[in-house]
Amino acid sequence: MKEKELQFIPLGGLGEVGRNMMVFKYGDQYLIVDCGVQFPDNSMIGVDYIIPDMQFLQGKEDKIVGIVITHAHEDHIGGLVHLFNLIENVPIYTTPLTAGMIEVKLARANKLSRTQLIVKKAGEMFDLGAFHIELFHMTHSIPDAVGLAITTPAGLVVVSGDYKFDPTPIDNWPSDYAKLGEIGTRNVLALFSDSTNAERPGHTPSEKDINHAFEDVFANAKGRIIISSFASLISRLQQLSVIARRHHRKICIVGTSMVDNVNLAKKLGYLDLPDEWIISLEEALHLPDKEVLILCTGSQGEPTSIMGRLSTGKYYAFSIKVGDTVMLSSHPIPGNEERVSALINRLYRMGANVIYQSLLSVHVSGHACQEEMKLLINLVKPKYFIPVHGELRHLYNHAKIGLQMGIPEDHIFVVENGQTINFRNGKAKLGEQVPASVVLVDGANVGDMNFDIMHQRERLADSGVIVVTLLMNKDSHRLRQDPQIVHYGLMIGAEAPDIEEDLQKSIVEFIEKRNPGTNNLEKNLEQLTRKFIYNATHRSPWVIVNPIYV
Amino acid sequence: MKEKELQFIPLGGLGEVGRNMMVFKYGDQYLIVDCGVQFPDNSMIGVDYIIPDMQFLQGKEDKIVGIVITHAHEDHIGGLVHLFNLIENVPIYTTPLTAGMIEVKLARANKLSRTQLIVKKAGEMFDLGAFHIELFHMTHSIPDAVGLAITTPAGLVVVSGDYKFDPTPIDNWPSDYAKLGEIGTRNVLALFSDSTNAERPGHTPSEKDINHAFEDVFANAKGRIIISSFASLISRLQQLSVIARRHHRKICIVGTSMVDNVNLAKKLGYLDLPDEWIISLEEALHLPDKEVLILCTGSQGEPTSIMGRLSTGKYYAFSIKVGDTVMLSSHPIPGNEERVSALINRLYRMGANVIYQSLLSVHVSGHACQEEMKLLINLVKPKYFIPVHGELRHLYNHAKIGLQMGIPEDHIFVVENGQTINFRNGKAKLGEQVPASVVLVDGANVGDMNFDIMHQRERLADSGVIVVTLLMNKDSHRLRQDPQIVHYGLMIGAEAPDIEEDLQKSIVEFIEKRNPGTNNLEKNLEQLTRKFIYNATHRSPWVIVNPIYV
Repeated sequence: MKEKELQFIPLGGLGEVGRNMMVFKYGDQYLIVDCGVQFPDNSMIGVDYIIPDMQFLQGKEDKIVGIVITHAHEDHIGGLVHLFNLIENVPIYTTPLTAGMIEVKLARANKLSRTQLIVKKAGEMFDLGAFHIELFHMTHSIPDAVGLAITTPAGLVVVSGDYKFDPTPIDNWPSDYAKLGEIGTRNVLALFSDSTNAERPGHTPSEKDINHAFEDVFANAKGRIIISSFASLISRLQQLSVIARRHHRKICIVGTSMVDNVNLAKKLGYLDLPDEWIISLEEALHLPDKEVLILCTGSQGEPTSIMGRLSTGKYYAFSIKVGDTVMLSSHPIPGNEERVSALINRLYRMGANVIYQSLLSVHVSGHACQEEMKLLINLVKPKYFIPVHGELRHLYNHAKIGLQMGIPEDHIFVVENGQTINFRNGKAKLGEQVPASVVLVDGANVGDMNFDIMHQRERLADSGVIVVTLLMNKDSHRLRQDPQIVHYGLMIGAEAPDIEEDLQKSIVEFIEKRNPGTNNLEKNLEQLTRKFIYNATHRSPWVIVNPIYV
Repeated sequence: MKEKELQFIPLGGLGEVGRNMMVFKYGDQYLIVDCGVQFPDNSMIGVDYIIPDMQFLQGKEDKIVGIVITHAHEDHIGGLVHLFNLIENVPIYTTPLTAGMIEVKLARANKLSRTQLIVKKAGEMFDLGAFHIELFHMTHSIPDAVGLAITTPAGLVVVSGDYKFDPTPIDNWPSDYAKLGEIGTRNVLALFSDSTNAERPGHTPSEKDINHAFEDVFANAKGRIIISSFASLISRLQQLSVIARRHHRKICIVGTSMVDNVNLAKKLGYLDLPDEWIISLEEALHLPDKEVLILCTGSQGEPTSIMGRLSTGKYYAFSIKVGDTVMLSSHPIPGNEERVSALINRLYRMGANVIYQSLLSVHVSGHACQEEMKLLINLVKPKYFIPVHGELRHLYNHAKIGLQMGIPEDHIFVVENGQTINFRNGKAKLGEQVPASVVLVDGANVGDMNFDIMHQRERLADSGVIVVTLLMNKDSHRLRQDPQIVHYGLMIGAEAPDIEEDLQKSIVEFIEKRNPGTNNLEKNLEQLTRKFIYNATHRSPWVIVNPIYV
């Protein structure tokens, strides 16, 4: 009977459950769904991003039947480069646009040869070992996103992927309601569903609902219009380009990531933007202001983005000027609020008319709200309901929705990463706990950053560092010269030299008075320095005492 | 004519204009309005808080006619302790509750003897030098808040203070609409008005509007109810205590700041909470769960607050248990979003039923929204309009409201801290720019922290530190022993010892090969170390090279 068991293993970053990676295991076959990164919060000093610890997959290449990717956002594909450091010869199955974006990514990292990209369109089905997979289209804030229906001998489970039910999407390609309904007739054992907006009542507005806000802005702008959004939000670019053409503005796209995405989306037919409407930045700067729309990235206030550099006057090619209308067509990602607010203030200071979500509805979420979550449950009619893709607060509130809809409490599982769920004979039970640690990535290295080092950096950040170097006579254990004191991030200003001098004196005195035979000189002097600095400055820097015996 | 000029000098923290301190100058007389602190944003590593640089007031004691405080929030009173480090014998004028809270603060800092607290009630008027001052009541999220009408020979100006127009406040003491209207008949020269919510349309809901949400929670809670809010939000405590009594729950208040505020507010008549309803924590833990309401601080996720410690299981007296209803009756202050979210997740993990603003309307802002801003302008009818108390984005949008209401563009001034405005012969003009720097406070020290040190800490936080100590022969300029290498916050793990050893070798090699006569050993080795570490780890720590010659 063991072989009739399907195991669900949620992995991912910190807090977010199963967003970055989900693994399904049947017998000894592994199916991986998504492989992304999580961005650190503000408290995780010096961490670039976080990936699931994928070590356990190493050496299991022959047991991994494939990787299926639902869509091309970083939190679903950004971990692939790291995964293919560890394994090779496991194919990736995904839709055309997602495949295109992954290809660029893997090629840049020189990892393309370690896998095979197999393109499958929404609506197609294929077998990976014991897993029969059907892809169905779901609307999201990037085109060509899919959910998965996975049939195994242990039953049929459905993965929503990141989704919303936009009835009037910009690309006129709504979620596949009919297919979901058809799947719902087939005794779905379990639904794994996106919980991001589980705290928000109602429906997420349609992409088309923000059209009139854009029309307003274009109708009233007297000068240039400069809009920043996410580079992967192809539908927004489509929408803005249509409005720009109606208002006789040519379109200039600035920034590598946005240009790359536009070219790929155009090539694959996901973006309709005739070449004659696209102009270079040089042309844009020579046309009358009223005839120009500039699109760029940086709506999250990233300092090195185009908009970030424009706001600090550090973009080489042009500057914001009085009369410009600058729009941030996005919502600050949690944790970026302060940075985005500072960006807005800087743009106002430059004299721009700044438009953003708090003033005008210029962005909609890519995730379902409560009423859409109910619709999905009603379509799919799962026996078991497992909220995923969210923090615990979102999963609990998604679970409440399931309860309200009559799913029995013991058929709803709120689990955290590493807590497996086993499906057997049509019944679900909590399974074993598997290690679900994460790897903190800093710079180009993977795996040599951890929580210890993060805490060390926190301490340095809080109070700086002080280094005391002592040249000691190796026979007498007495000082050969005055202690050298160097500090950084600790103190500055008129009193600093006095404090240093007094500390030197205290150290000299301590060494002179002590019994040269005693051990623990370093420890004692560390303590002395720590106390001394605390009394003088009320700070607790990291202290290094470095005695050299000659 | 010079003496007929009134000068307005906005001071304050970073970004927020005039929130923490405003100075009015007439002739050579200074009137100070408020003296608060600003809390740093997440990027200001190792800074506890920020205060306006008040050095320029030092030695001017005889020219400062007084300090008027509008209300007792930290961002309006938190700087007084620092001000009275610099000056003395300048009296503070404020309302009874505000005076009580300032008294506690100054007494704790041993500064009470350096000033005199003079209690004035809303509605009272008094003269401070050339300034005739009338206090009028304004509703806000702390009782006994006032605005100021200041009459000088140069004209009458009005300061709104932090305010909202709550028509049904919990203490039944609305803003003084009539007084504002009366002031409006007296040719107001300028209005300085709170811009906090200038981006929000409509009216801020009344405190009473959230009553039904609380009723719901109390009606449905099966176990204990634990609510955290701001310690100074007396009206919320009043509101909750009335509902608790209706639902037969005794009230336990935990935490020094909240207990102190409750006692002060009760003593002064701002809180009606009969003693027989208040119980100790010990009693609360012995009563049936259904009969208990616990009130505490920590709704911003502060790690050392009661709620912060409860959420990590580190509060000594009791623990959250399954069945508890835990409510955060507040909204995350910008920058605290991630911390509050983590708090909510931890409380869910403990099995609590967690209630917060995204789920239920359990908090209202203490600041006016757009319609209230319009009401204030219509009541006061100022000739000039100067938005204050907000970041530039808020001031610009507040200015737009003024424009919409027909105030001419050249009668509206959006200024930043340090940009003075001069009023003379009934006309306003931009005046000189005065230094408006800030002091970053870290630990107990004031003024020895600055932006250099903050940037040093940022660098340490980003990549750590590495210290190379060299014992050199002072004659031959050759190494006497192997270089010592110490690092912190830089690297950890299996490769670290190899990297250290390779770095040692490179340094030895460099010193052996170089011409001993050359200067710049330190600089060259810093560069070598930086490059070496970057190549090995892709990190850029701060490098200290410490050669000792013997």
